[in-house]
Amino acid sequence: MTTRATRGRRPGSPDTREAILVAARGLFADRGFGSTSVRAIAAEAGVDPALVHHYFASKDDLFVAALELPIDPRVLLAPVVAQGPDGAAERMLGVFLSVWDDPETRVRLLAVVRRVFEPEGKALIRDGFLRVVIGPIGAALGIDEPERRMPLVVSQMLGLIIVRYVLEIEPVASMSPDLVVATYAPTIQRYLTGELP
Amino acid sequence: MTTRATRGRRPGSPDTREAILVAARGLFADRGFGSTSVRAIAAEAGVDPALVHHYFASKDDLFVAALELPIDPRVLLAPVVAQGPDGAAERMLGVFLSVWDDPETRVRLLAVVRRVFEPEGKALIRDGFLRVVIGPIGAALGIDEPERRMPLVVSQMLGLIIVRYVLEIEPVASMSPDLVVATYAPTIQRYLTGELP
Repeated sequence: MTTRATRGRRPGSPDTREAILVAARGLFADRGFGSTSVRAIAAEAGVDPALVHHYFASKDDLFVAALELPIDPRVLLAPVVAQGPDGAAERMLGVFLSVWDDPETRVRLLAVVRRVFEPEGKALIRDGFLRVVIGPIGAALGIDEPERRMPLVVSQMLGLIIVRYVLEIEPVASMSPDLVVATYAPTIQRYLTGELP
Repeated sequence: MTTRATRGRRPGSPDTREAILVAARGLFADRGFGSTSVRAIAAEAGVDPALVHHYFASKDDLFVAALELPIDPRVLLAPVVAQGPDGAAERMLGVFLSVWDDPETRVRLLAVVRRVFEPEGKALIRDGFLRVVIGPIGAALGIDEPERRMPLVVSQMLGLIIVRYVLEIEPVASMSPDLVVATYAPTIQRYLTGELP
């Protein structure tokens, strides 16, 4: 408990961090990631912009936190990216499955994926997740035309999520992680580095 | 208008057909396709089973009608299937795009796809759509292990739907139909007839 008397929100309060996240979520959804400044988020939350930076090192970090993902995909995918494009599909699917096959994480990720059909979720996922997470992965992998190839990867990953975890269609729902990787890696690898029309 | 005095619902009334569909939708969703009989649907709708057959030639037809699809995928895909597995991916994608690229049809199909996240929609799509529509297509194509391969096809098709029509992620959202076909056909064809682990 703090004894400092202050006007407005206090740096030490968990409410402050939450207020910033609420403001960020609203503005990212309404205006998109690109058109939302840290200054605008601070104003909306009723705090000083410096306080936003106290909690979140960058607008990207704030965005990832606003998505309420149980994991930071950028951290998880760092080793995938570090080894370059050869075999990246297999490594990427391995990380993907280790996260999604965990029931507790899955529940929280599904809450995010479910938003694809809501207008706000669409803005968050399309203009944010792709720009902050997927785009940089493609760039860091050093593949050609990442802005064209990564959406193809996303299309197969989303379909796999829906069939394996949402609709639970057999045999995909019960396949071992190794079999899922072996089944889908050729598709993902072609989208990453293969010949496209 | 009929002058016959009858108890219960009358054959000529559009209400009767609708009542049957409402009963079918409820039972298919609650019990799944396999555990729902035409007799049970008739009882739920308060009509004679013969009347159900008056409107719907088979339980499969009733199911497709209950999904409220703007098109009957079995009719559309008949020519795809008739030409066998060679080049089936290209033909299938062509039909798929001709349907989905039509804005009016798309709106109605999206209403169905949106249900994947609802428990009832899950039962309808997984136990019904796969069994009535997707399964028979695989069988009619004469491919090996259709029950293993068709869910892979579904996983890529669903992901394509979400990226192109729901999230509208570029460049996939604006690709010409020919380019979409050329991009995705190798994936789909491998799932249909290619080597799998």
